[in-house]
Amino acid sequence: MTVTVSVLGLGPMGQALAGALVAAKHRTTVWNRTPAKADALRARGAVWADSPADAVAASDLILVNVVDQAAADAVLGAAGDAIAGRVVVGLSSDVPDSAHRTEELVTARGGRYLDGAIMTPTGTIGTPGASILFAGPRDLFDAHRAVFDVLATVSWVGAETGRAAAFDMALLDVFWTSVSGFVHALAMAGAHDIAPTELLPHAGNIAAILPPVFGEIAERVEADRHSDASASVSSVAASVRHLIAASASAGLDAGALEVFRGYVDAAVAAGHGADEISRIIPAAVTVPTP
Amino acid sequence: MTVTVSVLGLGPMGQALAGALVAAKHRTTVWNRTPAKADALRARGAVWADSPADAVAASDLILVNVVDQAAADAVLGAAGDAIAGRVVVGLSSDVPDSAHRTEELVTARGGRYLDGAIMTPTGTIGTPGASILFAGPRDLFDAHRAVFDVLATVSWVGAETGRAAAFDMALLDVFWTSVSGFVHALAMAGAHDIAPTELLPHAGNIAAILPPVFGEIAERVEADRHSDASASVSSVAASVRHLIAASASAGLDAGALEVFRGYVDAAVAAGHGADEISRIIPAAVTVPTP
Repeated sequence: MTVTVSVLGLGPMGQALAGALVAAKHRTTVWNRTPAKADALRARGAVWADSPADAVAASDLILVNVVDQAAADAVLGAAGDAIAGRVVVGLSSDVPDSAHRTEELVTARGGRYLDGAIMTPTGTIGTPGASILFAGPRDLFDAHRAVFDVLATVSWVGAETGRAAAFDMALLDVFWTSVSGFVHALAMAGAHDIAPTELLPHAGNIAAILPPVFGEIAERVEADRHSDASASVSSVAASVRHLIAASASAGLDAGALEVFRGYVDAAVAAGHGADEISRIIPAAVTVPTP
Repeated sequence: MTVTVSVLGLGPMGQALAGALVAAKHRTTVWNRTPAKADALRARGAVWADSPADAVAASDLILVNVVDQAAADAVLGAAGDAIAGRVVVGLSSDVPDSAHRTEELVTARGGRYLDGAIMTPTGTIGTPGASILFAGPRDLFDAHRAVFDVLATVSWVGAETGRAAAFDMALLDVFWTSVSGFVHALAMAGAHDIAPTELLPHAGNIAAILPPVFGEIAERVEADRHSDASASVSSVAASVRHLIAASASAGLDAGALEVFRGYVDAAVAAGHGADEISRIIPAAVTVPTP
């Protein structure tokens, strides 16, 4: 079945979404604040709408991908009553609470809302390598799943509307913190005349061992089982002290490493030095109540 | 050819190293401060030495794997003149400068020194999945390569003795910062009733996209080319602000994310907001000179 779909917001990600829909022969309407961003899509058959209201009125399913959820709310607010009877899917990256606000806005205008979080880069969209998580009414997800399948490998992560954004935040947390660590490592390596591309293959090996390490930590945290350590809190504490000293010798700040040392030292101070490094969750990262 | 090898230090890693040598039929002598750690190795054919001096005197090639380089120096200091004519390989994890100190100690006693950094977990030792980097005299590396090959996939990374430790520090920087990010993400997810093993497969997908992301950053930094952004500094700045807000909503500190925001904001302030995120290197991580 061909479903009519509108895409509001044509940044690189919005263009990728609309492009995948056009390629799958869905009647695709597009709108963007800067019309020129639609040129390539129009040449491929997408229909241009002059306003958010026209774009929303044109289709059954409305995908919104703008800079953040406040921008989505502004665009949807401008669409007004055209939202009545439509299904709106918010695909902008933002905090869980903002998904609730958009849901209220859409339902107040007679529409229904599903929140989504795109977890992979633009270039993956339209391939099984892409991942999009959805949260909100399960029937909306099921009813439009065929369209979503065109875009990515999709998962429904729960009825609570903020849940897709919660996954988004947690996963971006891992992603940007890891990238930050790599950036810092490049600077540390550079201080010893190690070129970025010389460090790179070894950094790739480190990335390759992260999934099993994450797996062990996740399982231990879930079972609250931290004994029989393979990487004890105190051995990690020693390692992190070396890293901080090496940062200082290299003339670098030790920012994220100091943060990690704080978690580790708190676990040692609490008497958990012999336990597995998984023990540093969650006490040390919770802000103490005053 | 069967080479005689001694392993000083029988923590989990030292036991793995000695075990791989025993399995490869090298005459392997072992010493450890706590003798009981040698029991399983002795049962498999390793020879026990009563002191560091005896262990060093027993073999041509001496591997030292203790808690850090200061501990290695203490053990080697205790071995005294037995070091003369031996090749000592330091495999403890520590800062680059400490490798230079061990080299001085060994050469002052008439031995020769090669520094090594073990980049993979204990369980990999003795398989091609293990990685050990060596720095120091190339002829020492070449002469004992057949023994090293038993332990891991090995690389010589330069004649400068501190270079293996510099790689070690940079790679552990990526590793522990990424683990720290995952720990923080588990706490963020937990605040939204997302269980660790529910987040895990998605975190694995994030780890899988790190190598190409690291690759793009490394190549851009090396070429000092940051234009035509796919992830601009300002878009990342917006994303990191969401993450920090989500941390606060979840009742968590935003430690490593605040550090990363510092790098990103500095790049924006310097007028590089439209550039690729690779632009945040190295200025933002260098401690300003007073």
